[in-house]
Amino acid sequence: MLEVNGRRYQLPKQPTVVVCVDGCEPDYLAQAVAAGRMPWMKRTLAEGTALVADCVVPTFTNPNNLSIVTGAPPSVHGICGNYLYDTESGTEVMMNDPKWLRAPTILAALANAGSVCAVVTAKDKLRKLLGKGMFESGSAGSNDSPRGTDGAGAGQGARSSICFSSEKADAVTVAENGIDDVLGLVKRPVPDVYSAALSEFVFAAGVALMATRRPDVMYLSTTDYIQHKHAPGTEGANAFYTMMDGYLGQLEAMGCVIALTADHGMNAKTRMDASPDVIYLQDRLDGWLGAGVARTILPITDPYVVHHGALGSFATVYLPAGRVADAQARIGAMRGIERVLTRDEAARVFELPPDRIGDLVVVSERSVVIGTAAARHDLSALDAPLRSHGGVSEQRVPLILNRRIDGLEPERRWRNFDAFDLALNRAQ
Amino acid sequence: MLEVNGRRYQLPKQPTVVVCVDGCEPDYLAQAVAAGRMPWMKRTLAEGTALVADCVVPTFTNPNNLSIVTGAPPSVHGICGNYLYDTESGTEVMMNDPKWLRAPTILAALANAGSVCAVVTAKDKLRKLLGKGMFESGSAGSNDSPRGTDGAGAGQGARSSICFSSEKADAVTVAENGIDDVLGLVKRPVPDVYSAALSEFVFAAGVALMATRRPDVMYLSTTDYIQHKHAPGTEGANAFYTMMDGYLGQLEAMGCVIALTADHGMNAKTRMDASPDVIYLQDRLDGWLGAGVARTILPITDPYVVHHGALGSFATVYLPAGRVADAQARIGAMRGIERVLTRDEAARVFELPPDRIGDLVVVSERSVVIGTAAARHDLSALDAPLRSHGGVSEQRVPLILNRRIDGLEPERRWRNFDAFDLALNRAQ
Repeated sequence: MLEVNGRRYQLPKQPTVVVCVDGCEPDYLAQAVAAGRMPWMKRTLAEGTALVADCVVPTFTNPNNLSIVTGAPPSVHGICGNYLYDTESGTEVMMNDPKWLRAPTILAALANAGSVCAVVTAKDKLRKLLGKGMFESGSAGSNDSPRGTDGAGAGQGARSSICFSSEKADAVTVAENGIDDVLGLVKRPVPDVYSAALSEFVFAAGVALMATRRPDVMYLSTTDYIQHKHAPGTEGANAFYTMMDGYLGQLEAMGCVIALTADHGMNAKTRMDASPDVIYLQDRLDGWLGAGVARTILPITDPYVVHHGALGSFATVYLPAGRVADAQARIGAMRGIERVLTRDEAARVFELPPDRIGDLVVVSERSVVIGTAAARHDLSALDAPLRSHGGVSEQRVPLILNRRIDGLEPERRWRNFDAFDLALNRAQ
Repeated sequence: MLEVNGRRYQLPKQPTVVVCVDGCEPDYLAQAVAAGRMPWMKRTLAEGTALVADCVVPTFTNPNNLSIVTGAPPSVHGICGNYLYDTESGTEVMMNDPKWLRAPTILAALANAGSVCAVVTAKDKLRKLLGKGMFESGSAGSNDSPRGTDGAGAGQGARSSICFSSEKADAVTVAENGIDDVLGLVKRPVPDVYSAALSEFVFAAGVALMATRRPDVMYLSTTDYIQHKHAPGTEGANAFYTMMDGYLGQLEAMGCVIALTADHGMNAKTRMDASPDVIYLQDRLDGWLGAGVARTILPITDPYVVHHGALGSFATVYLPAGRVADAQARIGAMRGIERVLTRDEAARVFELPPDRIGDLVVVSERSVVIGTAAARHDLSALDAPLRSHGGVSEQRVPLILNRRIDGLEPERRWRNFDAFDLALNRAQ
C-alpha cells in the first residue's frame, strides 16, 4: 500500500492500464457504440463500470494528465496550463519543464516501490512531466534533482520502467527512456505530429510493451488531433474509436485491468458562418485600459497550435491593483463569457494554484473561445470549423473500467483523477 | 404602426417572412455552411444580420413559437409547454387549444390592420394557436370567441389571410384555413408526420404562396424530425439545410425580407452506451414521498413522441405544501440535474406564468433528460441515439436577417421573439 498526495493505492495484482484519451467528449463513445464501431467498448460499458466524471478546469491536456497521474487537482500538483506568466521573471514561459511539478506522481511511487511502469504519450511535451521521478531510487517524487538531464532520465536504480513519446519514438535511449528501438518493437514509422497515427502509435506501443515486457502499470496518453477536427459520430471520429477499440480489446485479452478516462471534452467553437467565435480579450482590455496595461494569458498555448490556433475557452488576466473589480464586471457583461472569477475564487472553485493564475480567470461559453490580440493568432492553418476546449463546457469525460465495481456511490462527483484509485483499489 | 403586447411594429413595406426552424441549434448552420451546402445562408450571414439569440425556457416548440408570434415571453402569452396540469380540473391536458393563449399575436394584429398574413406550420398542433385572431375583424386579439369552431376559422371579414399545416394540407377549407386545394398549389402529396418532407412542404408552400398570392407577412414553422435524429454536420442534417437554403433563396429572389430563428436547439442526450440518459423523476419522488404524492409533469408531452419518447430536459413538479424545500434540495443534489427552481424563482428567471407551472421547475444538464415513471415512457421506437431539448443547454438559437441592420447593440441579449421587431422595424 502506497500513499501519494494523501490518497492510498494498492500495488497492482494484475497488469493495469490507465488510458487518457485526449479530447474524448463522452458522446464520441456513444455515437461510435451506436454505429456498431466499438464492440469491445459496448461490452465493457455493459459488463464493467461506466461513469461520467469531471475533469479539471482549465480543461486542457497537461493539467488533466498531471491530475490523473497524481490523483490530485492542480492546486496540489501545480500544473494549471501549458503556458504560464512567471511573475518572478516577468516572462511568459512553457510549463512543461518538470520543475513546475509540485507533487509526486503515482507512477513514480509505484516505480520506486518496485513496480515496472510504462508511460507512452503522443506528444513529447508531456513525457518529461509524466516521467518525473519514475527513474529515481528512493521514495516517490522526493527527489527533485533527477539523474537524467531533464527529469525523466532512466538510471540503473529502476527495474526497467519505460517512458517515451510517439513523437520522439525514433530518439529513445535506455538511459533517457528505459528502452531503445521502439520502432523495432512497434513495427511502425514515427508518425507525423499532426495525425491520428500519433495516437495509434501510443496504443500499438502499449500492446507491444504488454506483450513483450508485461509492465505492472501502464499509462497511455493520446492526442486530440482527431477530436479537434471531427465531431462525434462522423466517419473521421468513428474510425479513430474503432482503431482504439481494437487495441483495448487486445490489452484486455492479455489480462489487463483497464481504466479509460480523458483529459477534457471538445465542442464546436464557431459562429454560424463557421469562422471561429473568438473574443480577443487582450484587444478589449487594451481598449479599456490602454495598451499593455493588462496581460491576457492563454494557458492552451503550446508549440502545437495548428489545429486550434491557440484558441480555447479559458484565459487568465493579470491586472494592475485597483483595476480588478472593474475588469471583472466588464468582462462578465460580454456576450459569450460564462464566468469571471477572481484569483481566490478560481483557486477555490477550480482547485488551482493561486500563485500561477492571474488576477482574473475567464471562462467562455460552450461555443466561444478567448484569444489575446487578434494579431497574435494565426488561424490560416485551420482547415475545418474550429473545435476546442478549455471551459466548464468541456468538463464531462468518461471514466470507464473493464471490471464491474459494486457499491459505487450513485451521486458522487467522480473526477478523471480517480482513475488510478478505481483501477488499483477497487477493480482488482 | 401597431402596438402588440407593449411593443410597436411597423406595417411591412416589403413582403416579410419569419421562419422558425424547429430545433435549429446554430451549429447546424455552421456545419452546413462549412460544407458548402448552404450558399444562400453563407452570403446572408456575410451581407445580412447574424445574431445568436436566446429562446425561452422550457426550450420547447409551442412556448417558443408563441413567443415569436407575440413578441413576448410565456409570462405574457401563457403557453409554457405542450402539456399542462390543470389545477382547476385536476387533470393533465394538452395546451394546444387557443383558449390557453392569453395574448394577441402580431399576426392577428397585422391581419386586422389589413395586412394579408399567411401561416404554414408543419404539425397541426400549432396551427390553431398561431392562427388565433387572424381571421377576426376588429382589434387584434381582442376577440376570444372566434367565429370558427376552434379559433382559427376564416371568416369573410379577413382579406384572404391563410393558416394551415402540412400535416392536414389535404383537409383545408376556405372557411377554416382561408385557402383550399393546397395540394394543387404546392404540387406535393401530404407528407408523413414523421418525415423531413413535412418541413419541406412548409417551405414549398411558402414559396408557392409568395409566388401566387404575395402575402404581406408570412410565418413558416417547421418540425424537428431531422434534428432529433441527425447531429450538425451529418449528411442527414446537411441535406435538410440544403433543401431549406434553396427555398429561402427563392423567397429572397421574390423580394422578401426574411428573418430566420428557431424555437430551440438540440443536443445528444445519451449515456456512453448510446441509451437515453434519463432521470425518471416520478419514480424517484415516489420512492422518497410515497406513490403519487408528487406529480411530475413533462411539458414536452404531445401526441407526437415517437422520435423523442417524451423525454426532454425540463420538468415541473407539483408537491404537497411543506415538501417543496426538501424536494428541491434532494432533486438538486442528483447527478445530471442543472437547476431546481421554486415556482416563483422559475417564473422570474424564465419568465413563465406562475399559475401554469408546478411548485418546482427542474432543468437537467446538456446530456440528460427527465422522465416521469419509467413505465410511462415507450422508448421502443427510438431508432437512433436520443437527441432532445427542453433545458437551458438548448437556449441558443439563430436570429438571422437577409438585410444588414446597422447600429445593433453589441452586448444585447437578443431573443428569438425579437424576430418580428427586427424584420418589421429595423430591416426595411
